[in-house]
Amino acid sequence: MPQSGFGPSKLTYQMSKVHNYSAGPCILPPEVMRKASQSVIELDGIGLSLIEISHRSKEFVAIMEKARGLVRELLNVPDNYSVLFLQGGASLGFYMSAINFMKNEGGKGAYVDTGSWSNKAMKEAALLGEVIETASSKADNYTHIPKGYTVPDDADYFHITSNNTIFGTQFKSFPESKVPMLCDMSSDIFSKPVDVSKFDLIYAGAQKNMGPAGTTVYIVNKDALGKTGRKIPSMLDLAVHDSKDSMFNTPPVFSVYVSMLTLEWMKSLGGLEAMQKRNEEKAALLYNEIDRNPLFEGTTAAEDRSTMNATFVLKDEAAHKERFDKMWNDARISGLKGHRSVGGYRASMYNALPLESVAVLTDVMKELERTA
Amino acid sequence: MPQSGFGPSKLTYQMSKVHNYSAGPCILPPEVMRKASQSVIELDGIGLSLIEISHRSKEFVAIMEKARGLVRELLNVPDNYSVLFLQGGASLGFYMSAINFMKNEGGKGAYVDTGSWSNKAMKEAALLGEVIETASSKADNYTHIPKGYTVPDDADYFHITSNNTIFGTQFKSFPESKVPMLCDMSSDIFSKPVDVSKFDLIYAGAQKNMGPAGTTVYIVNKDALGKTGRKIPSMLDLAVHDSKDSMFNTPPVFSVYVSMLTLEWMKSLGGLEAMQKRNEEKAALLYNEIDRNPLFEGTTAAEDRSTMNATFVLKDEAAHKERFDKMWNDARISGLKGHRSVGGYRASMYNALPLESVAVLTDVMKELERTA
Repeated sequence: MPQSGFGPSKLTYQMSKVHNYSAGPCILPPEVMRKASQSVIELDGIGLSLIEISHRSKEFVAIMEKARGLVRELLNVPDNYSVLFLQGGASLGFYMSAINFMKNEGGKGAYVDTGSWSNKAMKEAALLGEVIETASSKADNYTHIPKGYTVPDDADYFHITSNNTIFGTQFKSFPESKVPMLCDMSSDIFSKPVDVSKFDLIYAGAQKNMGPAGTTVYIVNKDALGKTGRKIPSMLDLAVHDSKDSMFNTPPVFSVYVSMLTLEWMKSLGGLEAMQKRNEEKAALLYNEIDRNPLFEGTTAAEDRSTMNATFVLKDEAAHKERFDKMWNDARISGLKGHRSVGGYRASMYNALPLESVAVLTDVMKELERTA
Repeated sequence: MPQSGFGPSKLTYQMSKVHNYSAGPCILPPEVMRKASQSVIELDGIGLSLIEISHRSKEFVAIMEKARGLVRELLNVPDNYSVLFLQGGASLGFYMSAINFMKNEGGKGAYVDTGSWSNKAMKEAALLGEVIETASSKADNYTHIPKGYTVPDDADYFHITSNNTIFGTQFKSFPESKVPMLCDMSSDIFSKPVDVSKFDLIYAGAQKNMGPAGTTVYIVNKDALGKTGRKIPSMLDLAVHDSKDSMFNTPPVFSVYVSMLTLEWMKSLGGLEAMQKRNEEKAALLYNEIDRNPLFEGTTAAEDRSTMNATFVLKDEAAHKERFDKMWNDARISGLKGHRSVGGYRASMYNALPLESVAVLTDVMKELERTA
């Protein structure tokens, strides 16, 4: 088994204290970085680097199995589901989710449109069959999560995006669906407990809460696979990957390993309940300041505000933008600029971001008000 | 620009002297490991780890561009070709190569069957159209590379696998083809100079000569794309990736970075001519011993022997196997076991394996003979 725990680092490097609000790839725990750095030199005393061993070696097979097991444990994944570490990001997941669930004859997929990511998912699915837009908040520039719709009973599946990184909206509860529910959970998986059994497929790029870019986790109800009547290319076929225990071909070794370390870190801190508490504290601190501070305002409906990505603007950019930008840069805050399609600011507060970093930001916001 | 060169390591770790013959993922240069390990802690003094920065950051964009540029420079890639760092390995490449080149109406792909990898490529292509087996060495258990065939003029493309890691065979010169030639070059790319202009597509998983598992390089003639009449899923469409400068979605940051370092290492040693010289020296040392030593024999036709993967057997396993296996294990040789479908031994001698490691193996072979 791979070695557990995060002993004291023998490395002479020190992390500079940058408050990393990057929307992804994003901050990971410093303990994880240290251990990963060591393993690139030598994995657990075996005389070889993590990145030069065979993926069929007993060491890497143990890493893959531990990573899969930790996903299962942290999310309480039912026994009839498979956990897979694949490649391609959610961008390939848009097509893979559709090709594994949409029937070959008269296929229909139903989608909730909550912004860019949903749109991309719909675009790929449209290559395979009919795409039904069940609900959309496009008319309001995606400032809220649509509610009060009915999922069509005749769809092969119903697809949602749990969190929108660009607009800062998040499903606070999941819709009910009689057809298989699929979810792109890239930007909030592992931020809180989730009832996996509500979904037939969850997929998520690693590079927010789980690890570095380069792997994508799929959690799939095995009983729901093989029902489309399609011939699916091997690398896109979740049943093929399941049959090979997530080792159909050479996996992205480093990304799977660092994901394993990060999952282990979550477990060591108390699992997803602890992550949820941590994330809600951070989000409360920042959103309270956005609401209290007369110079700022949030850009999304309060009930749909993401705990992962808080979006906000200065009410008077002309008066304050230059000074605010200088102040947060001076405070060594990084990655706060809003997405180009929204503007303003976006504070991404993934699992590994400490509360202390949020306090640095809210202090800067208070200081701006005091000295305005 | 990312920092160049490989300064003295501040790390306290020492690599144990294991002679790593792994078939892939495989040995990488120790300088590359050290620099990669440092960058996982902090990239070039920016206060952040390589794996926690945005892929849209100026630092990572520079890394991606440098990696693409080094491929171009080392292989002398023509201007009308695009160099892309994607995901999915050659296993996804089998399908991607076909979907980007096989016509939608009456599509035909011609293949040379040189073993497992060609077979997998043909299997994926058959989902899209007709697969023509132009030549095969299957009847001889793939111990040689087929010759003396004619590529059908009416095929949409002609596909070869330049090196077979399992059987230890390698194209020493490339066939002539009037139709676009596509090549899975996973296991010998960057081992020697190649005339890229002979091919319309070269694809290769990183995890042999180029870097760690997790990225796949595509070198594609842009003028040859967009001619199939197919609707191609975005993530499988080489024209889409080209239009986004290999950043259509979040790339596998670590794997691209370490590939950049390894490409830089090749350049610093004199480029692909130097790699070829190095690889031919190693191969000559080992094949000469296989041929000279009465206890061993090679398993492939001499003229098609791979410089990357040398396959050989003991003539009398019953008499010598147990002792030979103990001897090379004692010499700290790792990864010498043959592939399960061939048996015997396989010595994978990728770019980063030093001549010294081959000498250790040939010394063990001589010692076995001396003490037999």
